[in-house]
Amino acid sequence: MIWNDDIMKERIERIFDCVEEELDGIILYNSTKPHIDLTFYYVTGLIEGEFEGSAVMLYPDNTGEILTSRLEEESAKKAGMPVTAIMKKDERESWLNKNLDDMGRIGVNSTELTYYAYKNIKKATDAEIIDISDAVIEARNIKDEEELKRLRKACDIASHVAEDIVGFIEPGIKEYELAAEISYRMKKLGATGDAFEIIASSGPNSAEPHYTAGEKELEKGDFVVLDFGALYKRYRSDITRTYVIGKATGKQKRIYNTVLNAQKAALDVIKSGAKGSDVHSKAAQLIDSTEFRGKFTHGLGHSIGLSVHDGSGLSPSLDITLEANMVYTVEPGIYIPEYGGVRIEDDIVVTEDGYELLTDADKELTEIN
Amino acid sequence: MIWNDDIMKERIERIFDCVEEELDGIILYNSTKPHIDLTFYYVTGLIEGEFEGSAVMLYPDNTGEILTSRLEEESAKKAGMPVTAIMKKDERESWLNKNLDDMGRIGVNSTELTYYAYKNIKKATDAEIIDISDAVIEARNIKDEEELKRLRKACDIASHVAEDIVGFIEPGIKEYELAAEISYRMKKLGATGDAFEIIASSGPNSAEPHYTAGEKELEKGDFVVLDFGALYKRYRSDITRTYVIGKATGKQKRIYNTVLNAQKAALDVIKSGAKGSDVHSKAAQLIDSTEFRGKFTHGLGHSIGLSVHDGSGLSPSLDITLEANMVYTVEPGIYIPEYGGVRIEDDIVVTEDGYELLTDADKELTEIN
Repeated sequence: MIWNDDIMKERIERIFDCVEEELDGIILYNSTKPHIDLTFYYVTGLIEGEFEGSAVMLYPDNTGEILTSRLEEESAKKAGMPVTAIMKKDERESWLNKNLDDMGRIGVNSTELTYYAYKNIKKATDAEIIDISDAVIEARNIKDEEELKRLRKACDIASHVAEDIVGFIEPGIKEYELAAEISYRMKKLGATGDAFEIIASSGPNSAEPHYTAGEKELEKGDFVVLDFGALYKRYRSDITRTYVIGKATGKQKRIYNTVLNAQKAALDVIKSGAKGSDVHSKAAQLIDSTEFRGKFTHGLGHSIGLSVHDGSGLSPSLDITLEANMVYTVEPGIYIPEYGGVRIEDDIVVTEDGYELLTDADKELTEIN
Repeated sequence: MIWNDDIMKERIERIFDCVEEELDGIILYNSTKPHIDLTFYYVTGLIEGEFEGSAVMLYPDNTGEILTSRLEEESAKKAGMPVTAIMKKDERESWLNKNLDDMGRIGVNSTELTYYAYKNIKKATDAEIIDISDAVIEARNIKDEEELKRLRKACDIASHVAEDIVGFIEPGIKEYELAAEISYRMKKLGATGDAFEIIASSGPNSAEPHYTAGEKELEKGDFVVLDFGALYKRYRSDITRTYVIGKATGKQKRIYNTVLNAQKAALDVIKSGAKGSDVHSKAAQLIDSTEFRGKFTHGLGHSIGLSVHDGSGLSPSLDITLEANMVYTVEPGIYIPEYGGVRIEDDIVVTEDGYELLTDADKELTEIN
């Protein structure tokens, strides 16, 4: 797949535009997995390839140049940028020296660059090193059409499975079997992987937001929280649905509907210009006005994209003003220790007047008999 | 699951022992996913939890102390170390200040620490910062019994699926469907995830070592390379088997048997005291003595553990002397552009006299009709 140069140039331009300082160049420099700068994929558009130890130089005229190993040379060429392919470590040093030596000011992405890689950059140049990580987050936070296309597909796959999996759930199935089934169904629909480790928690386990999946069998009376997403062409969706095994009790219904209402309250205020912290507050205030006060224990949402936590969020501690084409999760929850929990999560694109819902799976309370 | 303090103390001690300088402490400090220091899991033994923005301080008396968010406090406590749980960013700064302020020399793991996190550490202390990443790799490279137990299980799952998947392969199946099926079968056997993105390449695609899986249907005459591994309690296996769809041609048989012989030649010289580069050479020399000279284009193997590339390798460019309880992949391959490729990969533990084979799936040439 040959990339559209214009899209890549626009992305590179967007990063330079977000940096206050005048730079001679930017270097994005990967280490060993998992310490790969996802911005490498953002500016190259590449899908296939691991690119450990690879780097990309970006220049103020919005061009780029890739360093990679001989092994991934063919993959790297698909970016349509000049590629230097090396076999040995000292060739990497020469490349760094040659490219960085005469620069006065170089940008690095400190939140995705290892300290080790930083030291290698310092060795190659006396240039001033400028941390441009805020600019990278700012640039990546507003998605372009190609990114939205991939996110929509990743969300479609997850939504489809969220509805479809209901037919598979029954008492006696183990949490990890449910996780395996979800992953399988997403991949059959074209996902290249799970966006993150799948959460399939039931009964008391559902009260732990970060529990993944264990040996427990689903039982009558359980809440079942399924939190998963599809990886599609490097972009990640993230959806959560909660079901009840058997007939829901009055308390279960009250918890569920409170979370659903909290999500609605938050969605209602999302639009370009809204403050992220206010969106969070709408959901939190609704929950805190009920008997479940204090049981919503995390931020309302996070941006998604190349990463499942793409650098921004809807949270009381973050100062974010929403803009069109930002993509966030909206995921209020209520967690009652030793009893259980409910979380409902959707992915949305911010628009001028509101939002576009990316995950449209049904979310009325579903009782599984 | 409460962890055995002795195992953790031994791991912490092993790291301090591998550092030349006298240190007042070591800080391992995670950023946002995927930029998590896997050594955090090594010294805490924790399985569940993401631990973004979390840190662990290690002291020369082999004790430790965890900083995490309120959300993951319960998960963190399972490590059996003191836990400080925080809600806000400035509480993290206070914790860093309190713990680092009076230290003279602090170790950091530069290959898994972001430059951003490093800057936060620098802000909190005037101490000398010592890069201990070589010591961390050295310590982690020799596995203890608990690690071997998890690796054996991860390898068992992958081996089982490598044999079992033969019954599923047939012409007309798409590469990505095969990848989905492998993942599903591993999870049904207890894997918590894929160790890495599954490679299911067929026909000419199999000539690209880092191709993953696409839309191509398996056809008669194809080589099918399946490269996958199980994630089990945070440890990762890595196996490759190559099959032929239909009757193998003479050339296919020669390629396959050359790779198999190359692997045997390498395995034969593995034992404590052997040089990793010599093990690589045995395989490379065997291939280069045939008509497939120059077609083995990557290193012979890499250490596995918490990461699928755990920091060390069997390669001409690395100076490694094997020791008992190191765990490596052994994976020669022959790649013929536009035609196809064969790779055969197993995981082994180095022993005093040789090696223990962890992946025992059959590897005679299998023709699928």
